[in-house]
Amino acid sequence: MHAEIISIGTEILMGEIVDTNSGYLAAELAKIGVEVRWVTKVGDDPDRLHEVIKRGWIRSDVTITTGGLGPTSDDLTRESIARVMGEEMVVQDDLLANLKAQFEGRGVPMPATNIKQATLIASAEVVLNPMGTAPGWWVNRGDRVIIAMPGPPRELSRMWDNELAPKLRSMNPDVAIITRTLKTFGISEGGLDEMLSPLFKSENPNLGIYSKQDGIHLRAIATAATESEARALILPMEQEIRRIVGHAIWGLDDETAVTQVIEALKRVGKTVGIIEGFTGGLLTSSMNEAPGYSDVVAGSIVASNAVALQRYGVPQEVSNTWNSPTSASAGALAMAAQNFFESHVGVGITGLVVEPTEASGPVGTAHMAFAVGDLVASRSGNYPTQRLRIRSRAVTHALLELIAVLNPTG
Amino acid sequence: MHAEIISIGTEILMGEIVDTNSGYLAAELAKIGVEVRWVTKVGDDPDRLHEVIKRGWIRSDVTITTGGLGPTSDDLTRESIARVMGEEMVVQDDLLANLKAQFEGRGVPMPATNIKQATLIASAEVVLNPMGTAPGWWVNRGDRVIIAMPGPPRELSRMWDNELAPKLRSMNPDVAIITRTLKTFGISEGGLDEMLSPLFKSENPNLGIYSKQDGIHLRAIATAATESEARALILPMEQEIRRIVGHAIWGLDDETAVTQVIEALKRVGKTVGIIEGFTGGLLTSSMNEAPGYSDVVAGSIVASNAVALQRYGVPQEVSNTWNSPTSASAGALAMAAQNFFESHVGVGITGLVVEPTEASGPVGTAHMAFAVGDLVASRSGNYPTQRLRIRSRAVTHALLELIAVLNPTG
Repeated sequence: MHAEIISIGTEILMGEIVDTNSGYLAAELAKIGVEVRWVTKVGDDPDRLHEVIKRGWIRSDVTITTGGLGPTSDDLTRESIARVMGEEMVVQDDLLANLKAQFEGRGVPMPATNIKQATLIASAEVVLNPMGTAPGWWVNRGDRVIIAMPGPPRELSRMWDNELAPKLRSMNPDVAIITRTLKTFGISEGGLDEMLSPLFKSENPNLGIYSKQDGIHLRAIATAATESEARALILPMEQEIRRIVGHAIWGLDDETAVTQVIEALKRVGKTVGIIEGFTGGLLTSSMNEAPGYSDVVAGSIVASNAVALQRYGVPQEVSNTWNSPTSASAGALAMAAQNFFESHVGVGITGLVVEPTEASGPVGTAHMAFAVGDLVASRSGNYPTQRLRIRSRAVTHALLELIAVLNPTG
Repeated sequence: MHAEIISIGTEILMGEIVDTNSGYLAAELAKIGVEVRWVTKVGDDPDRLHEVIKRGWIRSDVTITTGGLGPTSDDLTRESIARVMGEEMVVQDDLLANLKAQFEGRGVPMPATNIKQATLIASAEVVLNPMGTAPGWWVNRGDRVIIAMPGPPRELSRMWDNELAPKLRSMNPDVAIITRTLKTFGISEGGLDEMLSPLFKSENPNLGIYSKQDGIHLRAIATAATESEARALILPMEQEIRRIVGHAIWGLDDETAVTQVIEALKRVGKTVGIIEGFTGGLLTSSMNEAPGYSDVVAGSIVASNAVALQRYGVPQEVSNTWNSPTSASAGALAMAAQNFFESHVGVGITGLVVEPTEASGPVGTAHMAFAVGDLVASRSGNYPTQRLRIRSRAVTHALLELIAVLNPTG
């Protein structure tokens, strides 16, 4: 079964709203064995909208539209689908009553323009939207399906999980797809490619290699009639990868550098204190995104200049190196963090972002150090690219090194 | 003149790499009067790639492809364009010499697969890429153009600025488009819509209203034969908006809440110290993205729990309210920040993220306070949505309130 996704809206087309829905849906469709072949972004133009939905109806088993289900005259998805199907939009009394009740609940009368949100065509079933006023449509004629979903990601993902994924899966019952991602750090893409070369020849499971900001990911995808058969296909490949790559694997599937650092700290019962210069708060705010943060982070300081450093007990000879930082000054920051926050682990990051004369963007060298008990390990990294990229790469690097420091045997 | 953009690559199609290029190009094309009508994402599949480029060639004045110019057998953009045009790819000696020199510079021999990066077809001119090994193609026959650009955003934007924008502009010389964005905060979208209703009827300049994370944006777009004529069209509308909306306007065009806070601090010669709880470092790391940060931020502390707070001189009766924060505790944090960092301005943010029983995601209430001299202003905000969104909205809110505090008359 193959699908295409149509993201609707002039703001989406112009990049004023970033379209995250199509990527989300492509990944979700892959999980239930539906291959996405096309993603099209189109503005709120009736003829172009009609053209693209018609093409979807002709060439794809499943056409999924997102957006354009609002009440205004710019919201043309329903009208366009009705035109492609050659059917009339008819107001449904139950949907209308429901919609009116939603507005009453908010204490406002329903504007007349909202009535079209209570319509269906003969080939369409309603897909309930508990998070908003716009229900979706499930349009089915013969073996073809058009699905119309609202644009707001929260409404869309709820609708997908509760109604549409089960419905599509039941149309495609004999395919189960299982993926397993192993995330590595410290071996180059070329190195892994060579070490694992026989495995890349396998067709099912198929093994892919992806260079990501947090290292090289290995992803095995298996297809079978059932989930357990697919899992059984993947298991020996995963074992073989673990045997060959070993400790370079730091995480699986949805695990991130942040969740793994917090896990590792919890496992060894340790807290961490942070003084970050170069990364300007990004290390701390990244860690803050994961549950459990406040149990393991004793505190964090973002140092913006040499004067501030001395307030936290950083010796003057270290704060003097603010403009010519070294591994040693990162080490001193790590120890100062450990002392100031009375934490088991101290992390110090310092470094300079240099604007080179060439127009290729700034270059940054970060020095990072990890104090655990009396031991201090330090690392340095070079991150040549834009400002935010430099910082987020240094943050990822620091998180992955911290995992390694906390798990010395793997 | 109208264009379409084709983003090429299976990882782009599947959302594993977020396609930022199409939004960037859509905005850039609008600036030179080229309307984008379609954006299509397509995987590395020869037939589908051929189909989509052929459709572009037939229906659009300008078709721009991004990606698929690498050396591997998956990189099929050149082959697909050659097939659509019915022309042969021919190795160019000068391009090949250039490419070989690039590899020699890195001390590695050029792999044979890279040779296709040194090819052209008869209708194509080379577009130089100083940032990478893949040159672009400018394909022109009759009044139609296909442009092939590499996928990495740094390479693409350099190529766009240096070569392609001027070239396209010279094909479309009689259209100048000028936009002016006025960013407001504190008046609702409906309120602005009413206050400015006569202006929304204007066709040239055209006025749009957009609800963004940092308030409501008003955008005027004028089209004329020259830039100065377009500017002259916009000026009276901008003056009228300023007369009506006044102090609610906090920024223009590319100005962000962060750049405006840093500007305002510089203008009044003040420094700021920050203690942030709720936002977990995101306020500090956001400010750190703007040049001039280290001149105006005296320092920042990210508090993760009540114990840590007392280290910074926060009175125990305040740190005791960590789990039931109020405006008053935010005020105490702002004053503690001011004292600890000996800064003119202190910012304190505290609050709780609550996971409700309903599946609609966590809800956060943040309390923020701004101490300037002996005065403390406080605000609270509710941010119902996912974790990172909650924090970034609270950060934006804090930045905009800080601008208002620093510029009491506007």
